[in-house]
Amino acid sequence: MEKKNCVVAQSGGPTVAINSSLAGVIQGVIDTGYYEKVYGSIHGVMGLLNDNLMDCTLKARELPNFIELLKKSPSMYLGSCRYQLPDYDDDDAQYAFIFNKFKEYNIGAFFYIGGNDSMDTVDKLSKYGETIGSDVRIIGIPKTIDNDLCITDHTPGFGSAAKYVASTLLEIGHDTSIYPIKSITIVEIMGRDAGWLAGSSILARNEYNSAPHLVYLPEVAFDKDKFLEDVKDAVNKYHNIVIAVSEGIKDADGKYISASTAVEDTFGHSQLSGTGKCLEYIIKQNMQIKVRSVEINILQRSAAHMSSVTDIGEAFRLGYNAVNFAIQGETGIMVTLKRRNSKDYNVDIEKTPVENVAGLVKHVPREWINERGNNMTEEFFNYVYPLIQGEPVVPYKNGIPDYLDVAHLYPNSNE
Amino acid sequence: MEKKNCVVAQSGGPTVAINSSLAGVIQGVIDTGYYEKVYGSIHGVMGLLNDNLMDCTLKARELPNFIELLKKSPSMYLGSCRYQLPDYDDDDAQYAFIFNKFKEYNIGAFFYIGGNDSMDTVDKLSKYGETIGSDVRIIGIPKTIDNDLCITDHTPGFGSAAKYVASTLLEIGHDTSIYPIKSITIVEIMGRDAGWLAGSSILARNEYNSAPHLVYLPEVAFDKDKFLEDVKDAVNKYHNIVIAVSEGIKDADGKYISASTAVEDTFGHSQLSGTGKCLEYIIKQNMQIKVRSVEINILQRSAAHMSSVTDIGEAFRLGYNAVNFAIQGETGIMVTLKRRNSKDYNVDIEKTPVENVAGLVKHVPREWINERGNNMTEEFFNYVYPLIQGEPVVPYKNGIPDYLDVAHLYPNSNE
Repeated sequence: MEKKNCVVAQSGGPTVAINSSLAGVIQGVIDTGYYEKVYGSIHGVMGLLNDNLMDCTLKARELPNFIELLKKSPSMYLGSCRYQLPDYDDDDAQYAFIFNKFKEYNIGAFFYIGGNDSMDTVDKLSKYGETIGSDVRIIGIPKTIDNDLCITDHTPGFGSAAKYVASTLLEIGHDTSIYPIKSITIVEIMGRDAGWLAGSSILARNEYNSAPHLVYLPEVAFDKDKFLEDVKDAVNKYHNIVIAVSEGIKDADGKYISASTAVEDTFGHSQLSGTGKCLEYIIKQNMQIKVRSVEINILQRSAAHMSSVTDIGEAFRLGYNAVNFAIQGETGIMVTLKRRNSKDYNVDIEKTPVENVAGLVKHVPREWINERGNNMTEEFFNYVYPLIQGEPVVPYKNGIPDYLDVAHLYPNSNE
Repeated sequence: MEKKNCVVAQSGGPTVAINSSLAGVIQGVIDTGYYEKVYGSIHGVMGLLNDNLMDCTLKARELPNFIELLKKSPSMYLGSCRYQLPDYDDDDAQYAFIFNKFKEYNIGAFFYIGGNDSMDTVDKLSKYGETIGSDVRIIGIPKTIDNDLCITDHTPGFGSAAKYVASTLLEIGHDTSIYPIKSITIVEIMGRDAGWLAGSSILARNEYNSAPHLVYLPEVAFDKDKFLEDVKDAVNKYHNIVIAVSEGIKDADGKYISASTAVEDTFGHSQLSGTGKCLEYIIKQNMQIKVRSVEINILQRSAAHMSSVTDIGEAFRLGYNAVNFAIQGETGIMVTLKRRNSKDYNVDIEKTPVENVAGLVKHVPREWINERGNNMTEEFFNYVYPLIQGEPVVPYKNGIPDYLDVAHLYPNSNE
């Protein structure tokens, strides 16, 4: 019987681990030999709609260290999209087009690496496939620095971002400790709905460094008066303080603190910026003290030179095992990480119906935040600590990191 | 004859190489044996005024890897200050106090590691010393990520910051290339008066990465209309573009582009922020295209996990040789780096009267910027390229870098 091929795509925002999951899929396809080729769909599902596919198996054959380079390279080798399919009850034209494309390329499985919007696409495609009796396996592979996907213990990309945030907070702690005058430094960290990444900043603390001294997450309603009390107490005690804050903190009415600058993206998410600036302004209005804010911005999701080896390894395993699940006939699932209940940290690869994940958000449990709502508990520390362990050997060339090129994503690259 | 002691202090803003110069001074004192002890003055000259000195020779004896840890640790081990002595013609009370302190501690030399404001202090102290017939040698050791000191080929701290900026720009280049829709990313880089660091972002370019596509420095008057033309051309060609900009760009009248948000520090320098935001605003007002700005902020001067081995080594040599110059009887000088006129990059340590440096600014030569004023020339590339070479082995502990503690700088640490 003629072997089928498969397709893989990436979607949503970058992480430094999402290419490792792609590498896992490609290596899994090569090792199992069940599929003939694995195509990469350029710019997520858009590649299927625009007939823009590349042969990843060929690429891996041509470039001997392709898989290893891919595992260590930031951003998204296949490009991304922020495109959500319409409900097929309303309009199934794109679904029909995609499944015809699957036939045209003799596709047996589609792997989609992304966050909860991408899992919504996996859910819709697998359900539509069922209605037309398709045997194409549709499998989701999680990624997001936000760590806000349900069921899975954590998401690939989060551990590396947490390591970068913690290391950066330590360096900021050093930077802010040099002057004898009191100062406040606010560090704004990504996380629209959940505070996992901002909370991870506490991993910066060690024997001598107590920065960040205060931590604010979207999970606790932000109260300006309590905040100013917290800041005054901390400045009296430590003189130079560092505050870690999620971009997505909200007041008791659920309104974003940075609401004055919010705009909406195509999914209707508020694109936030300026939460740190807002807190800076609040302090300036109420205290006579040196204050500044730092927004780590896209560096926290693209700094592959400081990834977590644990994270990169798990991302690879998830991609690899997604192939195994497809071969076993699974569809409409997302592969997940299940933490073993053991003394030493370890995870198993499991799966869940993707509808348990699509469109849902996993928040930091309230009991992992202290009662005052300005610090994390030991449970939170124990949860996140293993995820940032291990430093990669980063190859450098001409003084800068040597990553896998993304030239095929540039305009006119197919001409 | 009883041996004298010496004092070292650090001043101005942090770099990741300034502790390496401190390590060089301490090692130089230990190796030459000319001075009995080297004291560290905490918070620059303030430590002398407040009798806050620590025994660095003792510290180096107690902690076997102190020197090596110090070389790799960010920020300023002895703390800093932004304090400028008054003219001694107006008020010599503090001068008299400091030189009495020198007598009290039997000091034969004072080493001051800093930028051009600190060199002003070196100049004043050495000239005052001359007027009272003091034999205390006063020596300046350069540092600044801005690279804007005269005479010396470049300044310690610049190479590491340039390496961080270039590597970060490469990672931002990856990050911005993933979406099929056009986009503009503005990266604001430190540099109030000179564009050395923003210019160094061009080292991010390699076989596939052309980011940054446009570069704007304070050395060329910023013209809004030309800027918009540049941006439109670049977006048409590359779709996703990255713009590197110095915080200190000015218009033809010499007014900072970010002037609306400028405040002044105690030296009368404008504290700038928001240049990137200003350019973002200009684009939003004139083009219908996705645009965002990223401010690398204090990370570029504190990210010791990505320092340049070349830079760290040169910083150490300057500190070490400052001790030699003091022993030879030099005073009122700053140690400098002189690039050899050879095929392979190499520098010699020289010296210059500190009045050649104090209060002056070295700008990027206009001919090292292209005629249009939006890119750097090959001469600039050749100048800066050797300075970012070499990657340090960074020790990690618990998933974050393992630096030398700065706990002695915390309030109440002397109680």
